[in-house]
Amino acid sequence: MDSKMKTSRRTFLKGSVALAGGSVAGAAVANEADPLITEVQEWASATGVGVDETPYGMPISFEKDVVRRNVEWLTASPISSINFTPIHALDGTITPQGCAFERHHSGAIELRKEDFRLMVNGLVDTPLVFSYQDLERFPRENHVYFCECAANTGMEWAGAQLNGAQFTHGMIHNMEYTGVPLRTLLNEAGLGAAGDLTGKWVYVEGADASSNGRSIPMEKALDDVLVAFKANGEALRMEHGYPVRLVVPGWEGNMWVKWLRRIEVTDAAVESREETSKYTDVYEDGTARKWTWVMDAKSVITSPSPQMPVSHAPGPMVISGLAWSGHGKITRVDVSRDGGITWQKARLGKQGDSKALTRFYLDGDWDGKAMLLQSRAMDETGYVQPTKQQLRDSRGENSVYHNNCIQTWYVDENGVVENVEVS
Amino acid sequence: MDSKMKTSRRTFLKGSVALAGGSVAGAAVANEADPLITEVQEWASATGVGVDETPYGMPISFEKDVVRRNVEWLTASPISSINFTPIHALDGTITPQGCAFERHHSGAIELRKEDFRLMVNGLVDTPLVFSYQDLERFPRENHVYFCECAANTGMEWAGAQLNGAQFTHGMIHNMEYTGVPLRTLLNEAGLGAAGDLTGKWVYVEGADASSNGRSIPMEKALDDVLVAFKANGEALRMEHGYPVRLVVPGWEGNMWVKWLRRIEVTDAAVESREETSKYTDVYEDGTARKWTWVMDAKSVITSPSPQMPVSHAPGPMVISGLAWSGHGKITRVDVSRDGGITWQKARLGKQGDSKALTRFYLDGDWDGKAMLLQSRAMDETGYVQPTKQQLRDSRGENSVYHNNCIQTWYVDENGVVENVEVS
Repeated sequence: MDSKMKTSRRTFLKGSVALAGGSVAGAAVANEADPLITEVQEWASATGVGVDETPYGMPISFEKDVVRRNVEWLTASPISSINFTPIHALDGTITPQGCAFERHHSGAIELRKEDFRLMVNGLVDTPLVFSYQDLERFPRENHVYFCECAANTGMEWAGAQLNGAQFTHGMIHNMEYTGVPLRTLLNEAGLGAAGDLTGKWVYVEGADASSNGRSIPMEKALDDVLVAFKANGEALRMEHGYPVRLVVPGWEGNMWVKWLRRIEVTDAAVESREETSKYTDVYEDGTARKWTWVMDAKSVITSPSPQMPVSHAPGPMVISGLAWSGHGKITRVDVSRDGGITWQKARLGKQGDSKALTRFYLDGDWDGKAMLLQSRAMDETGYVQPTKQQLRDSRGENSVYHNNCIQTWYVDENGVVENVEVS
Repeated sequence: MDSKMKTSRRTFLKGSVALAGGSVAGAAVANEADPLITEVQEWASATGVGVDETPYGMPISFEKDVVRRNVEWLTASPISSINFTPIHALDGTITPQGCAFERHHSGAIELRKEDFRLMVNGLVDTPLVFSYQDLERFPRENHVYFCECAANTGMEWAGAQLNGAQFTHGMIHNMEYTGVPLRTLLNEAGLGAAGDLTGKWVYVEGADASSNGRSIPMEKALDDVLVAFKANGEALRMEHGYPVRLVVPGWEGNMWVKWLRRIEVTDAAVESREETSKYTDVYEDGTARKWTWVMDAKSVITSPSPQMPVSHAPGPMVISGLAWSGHGKITRVDVSRDGGITWQKARLGKQGDSKALTRFYLDGDWDGKAMLLQSRAMDETGYVQPTKQQLRDSRGENSVYHNNCIQTWYVDENGVVENVEVS
């Protein structure tokens, strides 16, 4: 059988970047015995590793670089932090909690379930306080949703700055949340006292020192907001708001208040620091866009990308990325290899969930030439992800938040990838 | 506002188990100031914990008991191990890899991607060897599937033995797998040499010392089997087969060969140890059921359960559990509180995925009396999960594997839960 053995066509093509200009070693490989096939390996002849000592398993040591990372100059203060999901190294759609980005404004807190209290007050019939155990006695739901920081891709307003999909687009995660609909708790307290609900709001705040208060219009509060206590089946991690956080599907991550403490029904938005001086976009004339909660349709190619160069020769190549929309389902993603001149329709990993990450693939061949890779998402409202120039034309260049522009990666002949802009 | 404040109706009911026979302290609580509400807490007045030091986050210390566990007497040999997912403490459907059960036969191995080789040989046109990188160049798919060990619930054939859903039903996990369809690799090698594919098989084996070889009929191999390299978006953990495992949707976990090494196309089943003396069910007369690959529809209530007693007074109570079927989607789950005399239709957490865990809930009230809790799953084929007696009647009492019987939990007046049988 050995004499008949050949390697895959894809193996023929492997390693040409390292061997640039050298021979493609297909035939040679087919004739040489590969000791990894022909010899009995150490791992096949001895007992492996027991896992009794790892009741909660961690990634294998070979994957130690697939972790959240931060960018030191982005957060001047040690108590205000942001980090980034390693989206360049992930596939599928679910983000494991352990490497899911998180942002806090005054440090993560260690709040025991026994010490958790959630107050619902303001314009309600009966102000109430819920313990953690109380929450578990209400009907609960499970939904996969993305959570994206309003500042995701924010550094890119100023030009192509951060050289990696993890840093340009990694302030996002996608988890299966379990929680009680907020409307259930509001109805338990009774909304009769609020009168006509039109124009009413809820103000939500956390138990940490920052409290991170945000105003949410009543219509959204009664729609799909969850008071959540599990993510991907297990308890929220400390940095994701243990024991309870708010989930505000499709809306900016800052509103997903962690270590949830209080929900007040009000007759006006509070206009807190977090929704006035922060998390708003300033136009050229100095005025600001008001209420920019929904995260518009967006996408990014995660592989190849600067941290995930092409490490194989021309030939079969899978281009893959993520798309999402705060307005609902992703219906289509197109991929360009020439900086937006021509487009090909990508294959969706599976039909997109609403307000959740959708994985897309373009299965094709690479001709070995340089590429300007782009992806462009469309959602069920018909909205099409804009170019960076289109965004700048409409919003000016003072913005930090809500940058959902088409991203461009330059792939050179050696497979090296760089963050660039095309005009 | 303090004078108006009341606690939730559910709070009124809290703690009656601890206070058994004592007063339900609702009114008192409403008048007493709760310092957790009225006083500024330490965590609200100081900087919290930075998370820069935890690029890969772990569960908070308060959840340290939510881990895989083993049962020492179940695995006599230190090199053959099984452990159990803490399903009693999870919600939703996704199982985090870190606490997903795993079974190995000669220890987990540490196999670098660079050292990975997958041979496809036997009755193929061109025997091929794939590197890890080769696999990444084929079109890939994402699917959530459950993986259940054939021995899950196996100890319960002999009576109600293990006092916890984690131990009776925890040899199961449910993850989003990313991989290349096996049919793609078989077609790359070419199946012309195999002639008529009817009656043909593939024999799959792992790179570990046990090799754990299994035969899979060609029809299944060409259907939905995946050669997978990611679970829940990230690389497989070592104990789940890093870098590559087989995913055989709906079929017993032993066939999901880890550290995948070789796939041979054959004209007959190999009838290896793992599919003859192991993983088969012996009838009363000493003969064995042959080819029992599909995991039939099954369900279990995870809360309440022996490790998750009822810790609140009578009143609102959510009963929750998991259901699954190797034949497709779960269409309905019923719950009984009286040991199977009367049934109520449970609410499905969301419409079930095919061959994936489905979460169910029964939202109701507990009258404080003892209950015999059962759940009963139905799948899209019309199959109804059987009672333990029905299984014994058809298979006798020599079995260890494939026990998908209805489970009974006895809940006493104090909320304590025990594994029992009803006749």
